[in-house]
Amino acid sequence: MKKFAVITLFPEMFDKVLGQSMMWKASEIGAAEFHIVDLREFGIGPRKQVDDTVYGGGDGMLLKIEPLYAAVEHAKSLIGDAKVLLMSPRGTTWSQPLVRASADSSDNYILICGHYEGFDERIMSVVDQQVSVGDYVLTGGELPAMTIIDSIVRLLPGVLGGEQSAEIESFSDGDNLEYPQYTRPEVFTTPSGEELRVPEILLSGHHAEIAKWREQNSSTKPE
Amino acid sequence: MKKFAVITLFPEMFDKVLGQSMMWKASEIGAAEFHIVDLREFGIGPRKQVDDTVYGGGDGMLLKIEPLYAAVEHAKSLIGDAKVLLMSPRGTTWSQPLVRASADSSDNYILICGHYEGFDERIMSVVDQQVSVGDYVLTGGELPAMTIIDSIVRLLPGVLGGEQSAEIESFSDGDNLEYPQYTRPEVFTTPSGEELRVPEILLSGHHAEIAKWREQNSSTKPE
Repeated sequence: MKKFAVITLFPEMFDKVLGQSMMWKASEIGAAEFHIVDLREFGIGPRKQVDDTVYGGGDGMLLKIEPLYAAVEHAKSLIGDAKVLLMSPRGTTWSQPLVRASADSSDNYILICGHYEGFDERIMSVVDQQVSVGDYVLTGGELPAMTIIDSIVRLLPGVLGGEQSAEIESFSDGDNLEYPQYTRPEVFTTPSGEELRVPEILLSGHHAEIAKWREQNSSTKPE
Repeated sequence: MKKFAVITLFPEMFDKVLGQSMMWKASEIGAAEFHIVDLREFGIGPRKQVDDTVYGGGDGMLLKIEPLYAAVEHAKSLIGDAKVLLMSPRGTTWSQPLVRASADSSDNYILICGHYEGFDERIMSVVDQQVSVGDYVLTGGELPAMTIIDSIVRLLPGVLGGEQSAEIESFSDGDNLEYPQYTRPEVFTTPSGEELRVPEILLSGHHAEIAKWREQNSSTKPE
């Protein structure tokens, strides 16, 4: 059982995403457990303040250390000891080898979602790793956190089906070739009258010829 | 006004994400418009079939061409002429220069979300570009589509505030240095009694010294 706790100011963003079929199945079969921690609940004072201005000057607001620290403590009370990941465009770039290592490990994860304002640096005292999902900037850490969770959960035992799972394993290693695939109908006619046909060879039933065609028409990921 | 239409089997996943503050503001000020097209509605027959087995053999199911084609036509009826992006781990890797070019262009976008089964190859007749958000495999194209939309929308005029916006621009170019930032309190005491302090210099009010400290303590993105 792999446990995830997400610390966010936008807990409602996770409702439907974690209810989506694969995530739901992972919960249902006990492969994964999800907790959403609302950072606002750990805000300070009657206004539940979570951010404040920058010491020494600077634009924007930073997430304060006290609410973040308290939210991490709370997350640990929910899922026990866990690796703490901070979503950040400056972090280590997430990739399939890291996904696989995370899925194979016995680690649980706390994911901290920030917004563009940034964090009081002292949060680093509880962060194990800063993680980026790609070389682009997003409004907040919520989509990256969902992305990381999705990538890991689908590799947990029992979450995807048998044969399909094996297929995906080899795909995710990036070492199998991708060839064009087709399904019914044999001929699809566009509204403008163009006929798009399935290559004849794929309808032939000649397995050796089909394998050859697929190899000839394969491509690997473009750079 | 930039228009987006997303074609998906999981429309409910987009509800809360598109209602999130930045997206909501973008709609409110007329900077962006979002449409979610439910692929299932274009399914075939009473069971609204959207997928089928692979010609020539193979595991899994493919999304059929007729529903996909009809959904793209419908999306175009909603937002007019648009670039059609297919979310795919084999696509061009999304990055901030592509984000900027997309935000600056007058293009509208149709984003097709698939699931791991894949697509009937004939969908490529209407696809302008295959896009990947990173070198990892996800359950479906929904999180990548949200990621792409978020990255573009935040750069549209008026969506983020003035000064803050400028700050983010330079950040997203990756050419400014990142230095540790702090906010109140000056001293944070952890439950175990450890005192985490804001560096004295940042409390000094000496702007030149602060600038020097920040430069000395800057780092760029780790590889």
